[in-house]
Amino acid sequence: MDWLEILTETTQHVKALVTPLIGTPISRKTYGIGAGGDQKKHIDVQAEKAIIETLTEHGLDFTLISEESGIKEFGRAPVYYVITDPVDGTTNFLRGIPFACTSIAVSKSPRLDAIEAGVVTDLFHDTTYIAQKHMGSYCNYEKISPSETTNLSEALLGLDLNTLNSTELSENLNTLLTKCRHIRHLGANALEICYVADGTIDAFIDIRGKLRTTDMAAATLIIQEAGAQITTPNNAPLTNNLDPTERVSFIATGNTNLHQAITEILEKG
Amino acid sequence: MDWLEILTETTQHVKALVTPLIGTPISRKTYGIGAGGDQKKHIDVQAEKAIIETLTEHGLDFTLISEESGIKEFGRAPVYYVITDPVDGTTNFLRGIPFACTSIAVSKSPRLDAIEAGVVTDLFHDTTYIAQKHMGSYCNYEKISPSETTNLSEALLGLDLNTLNSTELSENLNTLLTKCRHIRHLGANALEICYVADGTIDAFIDIRGKLRTTDMAAATLIIQEAGAQITTPNNAPLTNNLDPTERVSFIATGNTNLHQAITEILEKG
Repeated sequence: MDWLEILTETTQHVKALVTPLIGTPISRKTYGIGAGGDQKKHIDVQAEKAIIETLTEHGLDFTLISEESGIKEFGRAPVYYVITDPVDGTTNFLRGIPFACTSIAVSKSPRLDAIEAGVVTDLFHDTTYIAQKHMGSYCNYEKISPSETTNLSEALLGLDLNTLNSTELSENLNTLLTKCRHIRHLGANALEICYVADGTIDAFIDIRGKLRTTDMAAATLIIQEAGAQITTPNNAPLTNNLDPTERVSFIATGNTNLHQAITEILEKG
Repeated sequence: MDWLEILTETTQHVKALVTPLIGTPISRKTYGIGAGGDQKKHIDVQAEKAIIETLTEHGLDFTLISEESGIKEFGRAPVYYVITDPVDGTTNFLRGIPFACTSIAVSKSPRLDAIEAGVVTDLFHDTTYIAQKHMGSYCNYEKISPSETTNLSEALLGLDLNTLNSTELSENLNTLLTKCRHIRHLGANALEICYVADGTIDAFIDIRGKLRTTDMAAATLIIQEAGAQITTPNNAPLTNNLDPTERVSFIATGNTNLHQAITEILEKG
């Protein structure tokens, strides 16, 4: 079975369905709290529906692990897990900030280091990242590789600052911010990890301990298959469970030298 | 003379010329230091050339105030100043992060509070903001108005974090970051000020004292004509000179209540 083809078709279905909703009042309608703990918006629900529809139309048996619906089995005795954040960057999408994506991955066991294929599709632009284990990563069918920038003084660092609430951490983080050439917080973490995979940016960190593993499952394979680094802040491999309630902190960089430069500053506190 | 029509035509000329250069090696070629103190890139030079060409083709006499070339007279005894940042968000543009704009304004005296017309055009999307003094602000010919969000706990705050280097300031800034619902640093300040003008985001601050007045001249009129606030961090009007070397700090918000909530936190230090 060509999972990559199926996942790509699925993300295109999501995109076709949600793009007309950009900036509309209906897109902001809420339906209680999703499995990941956030408010479920109309677009999140529609996007997840598109994913389930596409996969079941193919007659697939799978266990869905989704930020919205939690863990659900489809078909008979499923072997595969399908892990998705139907819309990553929901706030951007609803406000019309052109930076959001849909993210979907597949694995045989529910762990972040067991992902076999992943697709991240930009919902505002014609950009799709794909990866299959041991097969490299591609953006719009071109092989990608990460940045070779090793100095913070030349680097563009992306980070997630939302509700970052530790003073001690902030001191080291401030030091890091002053040492980097450019900072960005764009607001759709899966797409930002893919930006590290293809060298658009040099590094991306999320050390809040708040990001769900479902949000970055596909992007984690894409960045690793591109030859870039993604680890815990203590430089350990990411082996977290794939579960809508499991949270993770990570440092993603284009190369090991830049990784070391960042972890050295963040560990000082 | 319909300046708004001419400025809009000018930004469309810039866009047509630079869009094909996105992500190309030639776009990153450098030509020394511009009047604003930054490295002049090929796309900056091309964009400025397109602006001068369009204006001189119309037989206009004007004094150009540009981040790239500094202050230059065109034609005979010019009455009008044309103030431009040919490409705002050059780093994003060169890296392929889809967030950059061209910004152009006109005034009869070289001060930030004398702008008579301004246009900001998104270089990646079909989005153009325009304003004429006392005539309101428009995005793609629809009248815009700012956000009514007054609580930080619901607000999306944009800010510029690049080379922010004051520890004392950072303490108050950290407090502000922890109180806002969402934070973004998108990397093209003129477009982010326009996002406050039309309520895409609730507030945008740049308190580094490093932004050039040429960069935000057009956006300043757009946000004011939309009915939103833009002031110094001490709540004073922006009356700075329009000069490529003049730097400014500001707080832009959709409404006065949110403005007060932000300035109260930033003034505590």
